[in-house]
Amino acid sequence: MSSHPLVVGIAGGTSSGKTTVTREIAAALGEANIALLQHDSYYKDLSQFGGKQAYEINFDHPDAYDTQLLIQHIRELKSGRSVHQPVYSYTTYRRTNEQRKVEPKRVIIVEGILIFFEPELRDIIDVKVFVETDDDERVLRRIRRDVLERGRTIESVMEQYIATVKPMHLEFVEPTKRWADVIIPRGGENRVAIDLVVRMLRTLDVA
Amino acid sequence: MSSHPLVVGIAGGTSSGKTTVTREIAAALGEANIALLQHDSYYKDLSQFGGKQAYEINFDHPDAYDTQLLIQHIRELKSGRSVHQPVYSYTTYRRTNEQRKVEPKRVIIVEGILIFFEPELRDIIDVKVFVETDDDERVLRRIRRDVLERGRTIESVMEQYIATVKPMHLEFVEPTKRWADVIIPRGGENRVAIDLVVRMLRTLDVA
Repeated sequence: MSSHPLVVGIAGGTSSGKTTVTREIAAALGEANIALLQHDSYYKDLSQFGGKQAYEINFDHPDAYDTQLLIQHIRELKSGRSVHQPVYSYTTYRRTNEQRKVEPKRVIIVEGILIFFEPELRDIIDVKVFVETDDDERVLRRIRRDVLERGRTIESVMEQYIATVKPMHLEFVEPTKRWADVIIPRGGENRVAIDLVVRMLRTLDVA
Repeated sequence: MSSHPLVVGIAGGTSSGKTTVTREIAAALGEANIALLQHDSYYKDLSQFGGKQAYEINFDHPDAYDTQLLIQHIRELKSGRSVHQPVYSYTTYRRTNEQRKVEPKRVIIVEGILIFFEPELRDIIDVKVFVETDDDERVLRRIRRDVLERGRTIESVMEQYIATVKPMHLEFVEPTKRWADVIIPRGGENRVAIDLVVRMLRTLDVA
């Protein structure tokens, strides 16, 4: 691979273990050696939805993201310039006044359920990893996260899952597995696959 | 990973690109650095089928293989001893009088459609790779191989595919994808994934 920064994309359904895989890779290479961009930070501000209320918005649909800004930021980082990533608030559905400065690094990790959906974004990702976890395990993990960690009711989590999360997964997320270079089954528990990616990245002299 | 030889398994359906992936890895690391064991070389001799004729045997079923001998050979190679691999004849359905001497190497590659089926075999494979290619592309490649390269009639290829290859794939091959550490889509054409595996193996100082 080239001496330019390497862009690694980590996609997969909700609660598939993307974040764990990303965290393990970052820990192994050293946080300081990685520029991390999460697609979720690029949710459009509520004001960009043409007057819609938050409850009318499908946040699992590709249109909920400002993907052009993410693409622009990846291009900046690849050119060796730092970027100011938006900080999104899940309580106001707006970008906060804060920004997070991300410095250019040898490895850029892009993470999100839908990062392989837009051809323009897909094409600037050098190594496309799709984390694949059984649907029943994903829904159990999501319930654990939303109910136990975020204090939501089990009814609201189940309703949202059936109403938007699952149909959007089938329509937009699952089909992008086709674009993956490598599929990692069992997500964060898959030590062999994480070790494989880490070893590959280490050959780039990133850490 | 340990300083013992690393056993890499490459599985996947018929004509998925397993052999191409194996060949690319061997070429990148140097043939001299790899011990290659193909499960197909361990087909049972016709005499081991209790008097059955060749046409009565389902060669896509796990029982058609002498998997215990393959396991024994992997164990020998891991212990630093060379083995004598059987040479199977597809015309007589018997082992020939020849044998192929395989020397112990830093990397042992085991290849075959069913190598993740037997738990005992699966458990001695350190990195389990499953090559996944769309079913329609696999059948087209198989037709090309069997009709154009092996001179069989298209009717016989189609009949065998529907009668045994496909049902055995669904029953025994496809479910073993679950045990894979890494799934490689698009087989031999997937440069990024092959490069990833090669780079990982190079970190083991095998080449």
